Amino acid sequence: MAEPVKYISVVIVGCGRLGSQLAGQLSADGYNVVIVDQHEKAFKLLPSKFSGFCITGDATEQLVMQSANLENADCLMAMTQKDTLNLMVALVARVIFSVPHVIARVYDPQYEDLFSSYQIETISPTKLSSQAFLQKIQEYIDI
Amino acid sequence: MAEPVKYISVVIVGCGRLGSQLAGQLSADGYNVVIVDQHEKAFKLLPSKFSGFCITGDATEQLVMQSANLENADCLMAMTQKDTLNLMVALVARVIFSVPHVIARVYDPQYEDLFSSYQIETISPTKLSSQAFLQKIQEYIDI
Repeated sequence: MAEPVKYISVVIVGCGRLGSQLAGQLSADGYNVVIVDQHEKAFKLLPSKFSGFCITGDATEQLVMQSANLENADCLMAMTQKDTLNLMVALVARVIFSVPHVIARVYDPQYEDLFSSYQIETISPTKLSSQAFLQKIQEYIDI
Repeated sequence: MAEPVKYISVVIVGCGRLGSQLAGQLSADGYNVVIVDQHEKAFKLLPSKFSGFCITGDATEQLVMQSANLENADCLMAMTQKDTLNLMVALVARVIFSVPHVIARVYDPQYEDLFSSYQIETISPTKLSSQAFLQKIQEYIDI
């Protein structure tokens, strides 16, 4: 495990299974974490040791993201379950708040080019899983 | 890309985004693929070049899996969006049909131990994505 990096601030939008797990891990690793979700009950998914901030609100509203201190964030992670919402949140972070590192979760492969045309990095759970399954079956053949 | 492996038969349960993508890829690589889903319209997600078989039916019913020729399959992939359904399908494949290689997609980490206690390999999209995001942020720090 790397040394704690207390000076790195991360804003995560979407407190689903992935968002909450990542927020917990980053918080445990010493990052300053703010997590935003429009449903307060979503924060129940966070591990009890989570020491960051939770903001309830619509992440497409600039005021909400200001209260998440996005202008001082080093990284924004858009990880709701909606590709179009992730795109909007990521674009606002990139263009209006000038966040240096923006990453979005993307489900539908057809959106990937759109994200990359705005210099937004993407992570595709479908693609990662597909690769993992293909790797497994390749291992079976090699046995 | 490896040589086509026409003698390898794979049964995939669940024709969602991941299942359909994987079925298309395996089919293109020369595998014999059968894909099972309870909703016929799910097969619309398959790429047009998919050359395998589609079976509409409930994968927990033995007759359905017999018609998918599961007893002669080399590998079963349980990739519906329900962990409990994946567990049931994987167990039936392992115990009743003696399929040599069984892999399941698992969402909720609490199920992983249960799967592994039955020697069923698992792939977790949440865990894979979480690792990918953590790796990205680590790269940013190193820059």
